[in-house]
Amino acid sequence: MSEKFSEYFNQNKDRFLDELIEVLSIPSVSNGEANKSDVVRCAEWLKAHMEKIGLQNTEIYKTKGHPIVYGDYMNAGKDKPVILIYGHYDVQPPEPLDRWVNPPFSPIVKDGKIYGRGTADDKGQIFIHLKAIESFLKTDGTLPINVKIIFEGEEEIGSENLGEFISSHKELLKAEYVVISDTEMYEKGKPAICYGLRGLCYMQIDVTGPNRDLHSGTYGGAVENPINALAKIISQLKSDEGKILIDGFYDDVTDLTEEERKELNKLATDENQFKKDLDVKSLTGEKGYTLVERLTARPTLDCNGIWGGFQGKGTKTVIPSEAGVKISMRLVPQQNPEKIAELFKKYIEKISPDTIKVKVSYLHGGKPSVTSINSPAIKAAMSALKKGFETEPVFIKDGGSIPIVSTFKDELGADAILMGFGLPDDNIHSPNEKFELENFYKGIISVCYYYNELSNLEKFN
Amino acid sequence: MSEKFSEYFNQNKDRFLDELIEVLSIPSVSNGEANKSDVVRCAEWLKAHMEKIGLQNTEIYKTKGHPIVYGDYMNAGKDKPVILIYGHYDVQPPEPLDRWVNPPFSPIVKDGKIYGRGTADDKGQIFIHLKAIESFLKTDGTLPINVKIIFEGEEEIGSENLGEFISSHKELLKAEYVVISDTEMYEKGKPAICYGLRGLCYMQIDVTGPNRDLHSGTYGGAVENPINALAKIISQLKSDEGKILIDGFYDDVTDLTEEERKELNKLATDENQFKKDLDVKSLTGEKGYTLVERLTARPTLDCNGIWGGFQGKGTKTVIPSEAGVKISMRLVPQQNPEKIAELFKKYIEKISPDTIKVKVSYLHGGKPSVTSINSPAIKAAMSALKKGFETEPVFIKDGGSIPIVSTFKDELGADAILMGFGLPDDNIHSPNEKFELENFYKGIISVCYYYNELSNLEKFN
Repeated sequence: MSEKFSEYFNQNKDRFLDELIEVLSIPSVSNGEANKSDVVRCAEWLKAHMEKIGLQNTEIYKTKGHPIVYGDYMNAGKDKPVILIYGHYDVQPPEPLDRWVNPPFSPIVKDGKIYGRGTADDKGQIFIHLKAIESFLKTDGTLPINVKIIFEGEEEIGSENLGEFISSHKELLKAEYVVISDTEMYEKGKPAICYGLRGLCYMQIDVTGPNRDLHSGTYGGAVENPINALAKIISQLKSDEGKILIDGFYDDVTDLTEEERKELNKLATDENQFKKDLDVKSLTGEKGYTLVERLTARPTLDCNGIWGGFQGKGTKTVIPSEAGVKISMRLVPQQNPEKIAELFKKYIEKISPDTIKVKVSYLHGGKPSVTSINSPAIKAAMSALKKGFETEPVFIKDGGSIPIVSTFKDELGADAILMGFGLPDDNIHSPNEKFELENFYKGIISVCYYYNELSNLEKFN
Repeated sequence: MSEKFSEYFNQNKDRFLDELIEVLSIPSVSNGEANKSDVVRCAEWLKAHMEKIGLQNTEIYKTKGHPIVYGDYMNAGKDKPVILIYGHYDVQPPEPLDRWVNPPFSPIVKDGKIYGRGTADDKGQIFIHLKAIESFLKTDGTLPINVKIIFEGEEEIGSENLGEFISSHKELLKAEYVVISDTEMYEKGKPAICYGLRGLCYMQIDVTGPNRDLHSGTYGGAVENPINALAKIISQLKSDEGKILIDGFYDDVTDLTEEERKELNKLATDENQFKKDLDVKSLTGEKGYTLVERLTARPTLDCNGIWGGFQGKGTKTVIPSEAGVKISMRLVPQQNPEKIAELFKKYIEKISPDTIKVKVSYLHGGKPSVTSINSPAIKAAMSALKKGFETEPVFIKDGGSIPIVSTFKDELGADAILMGFGLPDDNIHSPNEKFELENFYKGIISVCYYYNELSNLEKFN
């Protein structure tokens, strides 16, 4: 087993970082139309880069939305496993812009971190794989395993077209395992393999009161105010003890076993540090569950955005015609997002007064997923992380969602290995997103080790 | 008593309308900084116009905010009363712009109505007085009464600097009555004198949760969401029966007497028509009070705007750091806005959980006011409206607020005569604001009659 990659890495790591800065500078925001051409430009940049490092059969596949980038290297030998590497090159909108210390698409390196939108989620992490592949191909002239790469441009908007693409390209994508680097480590210096992800159900409620904005003096006291009505609806979604009140919401939730709770709580987060980091006096959440359970193993409901009426400075005495809210729920095994969306809709209709019109929309969703911690590919991943970070890695569940994981399982029969290098404080989806250079560099080395370990999977049986 | 004004009016009314369109085209939006120079331009336009029609001592008074325009005509004779005419030339922000059929500052006349921001509130109405004055001065060469005119540019943002101006210019503004045309008629064809206005207390709540926007997957379930928390706070402001739940809120409310209720309910609004006009299935409001009582004689609480998190199209899985709401309360005699602001603040602090930080700000307020319906100036106004509209006028209370009315009473000892020519469906503060030409024209004639009646006030004793 060759380890020439290590020397190559040391000689080239500064260039790796320069290249990462180049791709981070493309504002591939998938949400809305404004950056559509930037998303295409980013796909083209990746395709060209994949060719340059020696990947083959590179291709940009058009979809109804943003394109999918594909490439592979299948010359490792028929006896070697085929691994599908999935990631996404699209990024979250950078707003609010005024909260960024440095502009989101002009990345800078400072104090051992690289700052910019997409650094941790997920361009920095897909780049780890590209640089690991390069480190093998430019030294050994081959890879220890066969790889297929698929990078999508719509992860941040619900992977709308990826499911359809996977179904219609099963032969192209066929693989034994899917490797995804889009999750987090447990903490700085503590790498982790994520064996469970929460699912997602994302809804929007639009409330209409009177057919036009009204003067609150002339109409106040007799006409339902859509903001007040919406607030009342939202207040009825969760009890004071953190239970979600939607009828039937918990019906399919698999209770945590004692063993699982024990395993999870080994990693108990320091509550005081957690509160200090967020500058909050108290935490919240479902009664009867520990912090780590609430964060990863229990379902949640959060308002992600709300709007209505006058939002400017000063005052305007208006009863607005409309108000709206975006609400997302994190789901746990065996909850189904479509079913939850239906229950949500029914509940909102039940609790809404007839003084307003209510429209409930299901914007997107994804199933929760788990991988067995006893599978050889998972064990191999733990071994690789140990070598790369020179410390004992841990198993974690992640509270976030990668809806496509369950699609890979359903369509390709492939389990996902979630080997992520982000940190909980990387500010993904927030201003000042960053990625630790230590994790970028050790990530590349760990992934190199992982490709090597995967080429000898039998030793982990 | 001269009625030459009538002939002059008939010969010049088309020009009057053209001039009104000219002043309506100046976007004198007082809120924010964007239109600051337009507000000044509007003040200068008015000063020049006042000089042109023969008013004297015209002056623009600078304030810390937008300027005040003054002019007078004091040559009617020492035996004639001095009337202060107050109005405002600033307008509400036109947003949302996409809801206007015709641009807000390019007024058009259609079906006997003039459409544009400020048509009814209040440029069209202050113009009624200017054209009435012109109609006398250009025919008789004098006025039947002495008039002082004060037009402010900050009514829509709480008349922030007018109170101070009145206190420091008592001699300049001294008058027996203040005449204000900034209220509504009862309905089309039914002019009204408003003898009561609600007060106003306008608040803002800013909620901060975590110190930065968070990913709802990583943090959901343990960190308070400011939007959810804010919704819960708002939901606790009013009971399901429409009672405001702020401790002590009703302490100073003067109950309606049986006589008042009888008088008010003579004008009972047709509920079905009211609902149809607004396209709502049901009304809301305080239990135990009729529609007209709820609209004019009872206090209210309305959210005027709410914001927080992601408001764009599509989805973003964020727990925002901040959310906020603007809330205004209409007050009735003897409620005091400062006291209500204090009670509001205490209540919000009481009901807010310690998982969030809450900031409560008092943005502005004004006392409720009433004028005796037996005062000679009110009786004279009823007589003038009867002549101008050739129909019996009515007494109304208005649900809206003109906070400065109580300042005129406190500082100058002058009662206000609220002779308004708007209609409830004029869309003031909303897109497609309009003013009926019939009311503009009959308003000018009525005001001419009113000046005449005021010159013989003793006949109304």
